[in-house]
Amino acid sequence: MRPGPSQDEIRRQNLGALLRHVHVHGATSRAELTTALGLNRSTIGALTADLVSAGLVSEGAPKETGRAGRPSLVVRPESTRIYAYAYSIEVDRLRAARVGLGGAVLDRREMARPRGLTATEAAPLLAGAAKEMQQAVPAGAVCVGTGVAVCGMVRRDDGLVRLGPTTGWVDEPIGPALGAELGLDAPITVGNVADVAAFAEHARGVAAGCDNVVYLYGDVGVGAGIIAGGRRLTGHGGYGGEVGHMKVVRDGQPCECGARGCWETEIGEHGLLRNAGRCDARGRDALLAVFDAANRGDARANAAVRQAGDWLGFGVANLVNIFNPEMVIFGGTMRDLYLAAAAQIRSRLNANALPACLEHVRLRTPKLGDDAALIGAAELAFERLLADPLDVG
Amino acid sequence: MRPGPSQDEIRRQNLGALLRHVHVHGATSRAELTTALGLNRSTIGALTADLVSAGLVSEGAPKETGRAGRPSLVVRPESTRIYAYAYSIEVDRLRAARVGLGGAVLDRREMARPRGLTATEAAPLLAGAAKEMQQAVPAGAVCVGTGVAVCGMVRRDDGLVRLGPTTGWVDEPIGPALGAELGLDAPITVGNVADVAAFAEHARGVAAGCDNVVYLYGDVGVGAGIIAGGRRLTGHGGYGGEVGHMKVVRDGQPCECGARGCWETEIGEHGLLRNAGRCDARGRDALLAVFDAANRGDARANAAVRQAGDWLGFGVANLVNIFNPEMVIFGGTMRDLYLAAAAQIRSRLNANALPACLEHVRLRTPKLGDDAALIGAAELAFERLLADPLDVG
Repeated sequence: MRPGPSQDEIRRQNLGALLRHVHVHGATSRAELTTALGLNRSTIGALTADLVSAGLVSEGAPKETGRAGRPSLVVRPESTRIYAYAYSIEVDRLRAARVGLGGAVLDRREMARPRGLTATEAAPLLAGAAKEMQQAVPAGAVCVGTGVAVCGMVRRDDGLVRLGPTTGWVDEPIGPALGAELGLDAPITVGNVADVAAFAEHARGVAAGCDNVVYLYGDVGVGAGIIAGGRRLTGHGGYGGEVGHMKVVRDGQPCECGARGCWETEIGEHGLLRNAGRCDARGRDALLAVFDAANRGDARANAAVRQAGDWLGFGVANLVNIFNPEMVIFGGTMRDLYLAAAAQIRSRLNANALPACLEHVRLRTPKLGDDAALIGAAELAFERLLADPLDVG
Repeated sequence: MRPGPSQDEIRRQNLGALLRHVHVHGATSRAELTTALGLNRSTIGALTADLVSAGLVSEGAPKETGRAGRPSLVVRPESTRIYAYAYSIEVDRLRAARVGLGGAVLDRREMARPRGLTATEAAPLLAGAAKEMQQAVPAGAVCVGTGVAVCGMVRRDDGLVRLGPTTGWVDEPIGPALGAELGLDAPITVGNVADVAAFAEHARGVAAGCDNVVYLYGDVGVGAGIIAGGRRLTGHGGYGGEVGHMKVVRDGQPCECGARGCWETEIGEHGLLRNAGRCDARGRDALLAVFDAANRGDARANAAVRQAGDWLGFGVANLVNIFNPEMVIFGGTMRDLYLAAAAQIRSRLNANALPACLEHVRLRTPKLGDDAALIGAAELAFERLLADPLDVG
């Protein structure tokens, strides 16, 4: 346990707590802040005044309530003035967004990503999108950070992409490459796509208020963002959550990681297309075509989807026994598979998970949809501001 | 993020931090405490005085250093005055200990546990051991709590043992049963044996200073205590870490949990004895006999040990990919298996774990040995004192 903080640390912590509250919950009255933060009215007033001076929040009258009496002033995040850039590097596309304090996507760009594109090649494309968006930024607005979501294993200390089996990346320094293109000295925070999507869903999505969450994200491969005891599980180097490389079949199908029988060889893109007899196809559209065909009664597609669903339930049962989560979220292609094969998944889960671990688990799809990666990347960028609001801006 | 604490909360937090430091590290000079806790000398002096008044620590001259100058006073935990009772309910035995602040086992009792013994039957045996030990307690000594380690899934909120497949327990209220026997009103904290052993090794054992740890504990079954980001992973209900019920073989051997192909059916007691052709044997002695036979060149025993070692490596590789730990500890029968089949384990780990997840993993045996469960149970009991030292005693 750390010793208690100094007076100055307490003030910064309180400022961060207040700013985080309106960042996550939006406009909040002073009265509600008093209750939510457990601080008295004069402290809330002083903290708000500091944040107003720093241009991070504004105060104003609430919307008409129709009730009598003097209404409590409402504190709002300066959503158009304070923003972050968020990038998402996916198997088939690159995305860039400008996200305001409070989590709204203010502007966005998207482009196809040819498979095989390196970090050095991706950086100018992303930087170009940011420069385009920059032209529409109102005068006086302040960028407080940059976050990047990547399909791959990201080293926590410096954001190096150690391995992206699905992107072909090995030791790609996307942060520095992007910083050089953008002409930025400020740190660029890089995270694994499943981790940042879990972060976003936990902060302001379907898992808000849940302390123990497994967010499964699938594209070609499968990874998980884990929330344990209310905090992101990163592991020692930042590589935790590589559940797609949990072996489920001894001497099974070869995986792009070099081993055999990884879970993602059965539930990822390749496995599903292989079992549906479409070995030459690839990409999300090809996957969606299999789900469509299964829906329309194509026997082989249907069998492939059921088999993949059974394997999805098999692995989720293992994760339920290991993490005892209250929620499992199915994102990316795992969402499509979950919706197409819910019966197989539940049946396997009931057969394989321990009853005590299973009794409070809810299975859910993301609330933020595909935006989770962008919003999560922006959350990474906002973290520094929220930790110490007066030190940034 | 929570808002900052009040002055009183800060003082309690500082008292807890100081007491925890000497509890974990033993006698510490005021000068070292100043550095370790980042507090100034007068604050350390005032906090120490409070803890001395409460009878929790003592101050005195250090041992002779041979160096000139006035030595800094040394703060010591009151290890013989402040103690907790710790119990460990295992497959084959019951243990009870009196553990002093600072973590030393002051007294202990052990008895065989007939398999099948219920909580109601175990409670008087454990209480009897405590009453025996109580007679040797010096006048003025204070018991600050009671902790219990159990082979089984323990509900976090109330310590109910939901399921102990290896003890046959279902919904056994060991805490209340023991409290009634002991005539105690004070809360009795119950935890899973792997969780509390991990806690002990993390606090004062081989994993001290490690933030990401997997502690595997084996007896008939196999469970894990997980430390993630420096904190114990409990899961939503307290059932996290049930890695023994990770399925590794589809439609594999039947498990006592009702499913098939659980990891523990391959690496636990039953699997090893089955493969060694000793289906009628059971218990740790029978297991040790297999390891002995393998050492002496018995081909069947050797093959069984190698096979179990390979499966142990298979599952550990999955956990390494999922948790990215810096240390994996092998406790209970997993220690014996690890020592007997280290080559198979490392080979499988190298083949199956992702290189980035593997690069900083150290494989270790427990430093606290079999005492980890008792010391960890005592740590559970000390938690309340360390969280708020002046509120207990």
